[in-house]
Amino acid sequence: MRIAVGLEYDGSQYYGWQKQREVVGVQQRVEEALAKVADHPVEVTCAGRTDAGVHATAQVVHFDTPNDRRGAAWTLGVNAHLPADIAVRWAQPVAEDFSARFSAVARRYRYIIANTALRPGIHGHGVSHYHKPLDVAAMQAAAPALLGEHDFSAFRAAQCQSHSPFRCVHHLQVKRHGDFVVVDIGANAFLHHMVRNIVGSLLVIGQHQAPVTWLAELLASKDRTQAAATAKPGGLYLVGVTYPEQWQLPTPVPGPLWLGDDS
Amino acid sequence: MRIAVGLEYDGSQYYGWQKQREVVGVQQRVEEALAKVADHPVEVTCAGRTDAGVHATAQVVHFDTPNDRRGAAWTLGVNAHLPADIAVRWAQPVAEDFSARFSAVARRYRYIIANTALRPGIHGHGVSHYHKPLDVAAMQAAAPALLGEHDFSAFRAAQCQSHSPFRCVHHLQVKRHGDFVVVDIGANAFLHHMVRNIVGSLLVIGQHQAPVTWLAELLASKDRTQAAATAKPGGLYLVGVTYPEQWQLPTPVPGPLWLGDDS
Repeated sequence: MRIAVGLEYDGSQYYGWQKQREVVGVQQRVEEALAKVADHPVEVTCAGRTDAGVHATAQVVHFDTPNDRRGAAWTLGVNAHLPADIAVRWAQPVAEDFSARFSAVARRYRYIIANTALRPGIHGHGVSHYHKPLDVAAMQAAAPALLGEHDFSAFRAAQCQSHSPFRCVHHLQVKRHGDFVVVDIGANAFLHHMVRNIVGSLLVIGQHQAPVTWLAELLASKDRTQAAATAKPGGLYLVGVTYPEQWQLPTPVPGPLWLGDDS
Repeated sequence: MRIAVGLEYDGSQYYGWQKQREVVGVQQRVEEALAKVADHPVEVTCAGRTDAGVHATAQVVHFDTPNDRRGAAWTLGVNAHLPADIAVRWAQPVAEDFSARFSAVARRYRYIIANTALRPGIHGHGVSHYHKPLDVAAMQAAAPALLGEHDFSAFRAAQCQSHSPFRCVHHLQVKRHGDFVVVDIGANAFLHHMVRNIVGSLLVIGQHQAPVTWLAELLASKDRTQAAATAKPGGLYLVGVTYPEQWQLPTPVPGPLWLGDDS
């Protein structure tokens, strides 16, 4: 049978999602914990391969097992084998043709900026600190230029392995919550470093080092060398993966922490 | 001259505020960093000696130095010498008769509960996880019984060294923010473990294992053995210290993170 699992993790101690030869990825810890409960080696497929230092409140994976475990085995049971910075949020059986990766129709990320003169002492690896005051209204005014289907080459990492530079951005919002600025972005899928490259350019606009219209110009240029530096990984969270309703998967609040659904 | 400093820290890696013989306290790291900038050994006095695993967004300390450092030396300069889980929020000169401890007229704490079936994977040492659904309305209904000046012996740790068991509680609020429940309490001062003992008993009421009236009964009993177990330290934050206006000290938002002033 096939099981889908929702995961939350703090990526700061990991070299990204994927297993690599010499360093530990989140995937490895998840597979080890699932294997203990399944009683056989487990390989998972995920919805979004997060980079080193990037977090998730709503990663989704699937795996196959012949062992029908009941009750809380795939949730409480697996959590008991996971380190404190990774946790299962939900788990449920799915049809054999479900894929955490290929069934997903949209992903949502939040980028959290601590916009204070001095760096934070709490949860410092879970936010990105930018000390210059950000003009959130200017950032929000620039954002609509990216909505819809576009060639996002200007915001694509050189090492991106995608066949196509086209993606469809569904929403892009910039909001201030006191000392924190949150960039919330949804798309059918993302190119490598696409969110952090967009945030990097929004930060330039938010500091009035480029006009609001610059984001549209960058997009039209399709030239990565024109855009700003990639924003730091620590503020980035995968907060949602959307699947067609037929799969009847849970949709927990995006978070992180008490940054709720509607905030 | 005397300098007052506002501090934020994640206490999870420290054995509390105070220096101890064999283990590291937050105080030690702060004094080391201040000494580097002051260029002489520094001893600080704090507003609230937090326990092991307890955090602060608004700790206040003072120290004396003959060296008049300008600009950002006591903020950015000190932060450069502090570990990532401790940060200066503000610093300013104060009169010689100011004491971070004895000039303080009130302290405020927030206790953050992750009230979810499964434990969190993000910031797990910065919240306390309680999986049973909490009835916040019942907790809030019990709270007014503790307001005002009372003998808080029922919520006082055996090792408390205070001369008097009397404290004056100014406010006690329990609010839900999605999956999180926040207990917010202010008093002139607190007995040892007083906040965590009050929260422990509120948790019993929130789980309907005792009636709303139980909190008043506990207070009247003055008997620590009647009250509930001490709540875990990881969810507790010192979020505010109040000084008379004459000292003109900053009052940053209590936090932590994007849990704002009015939320």
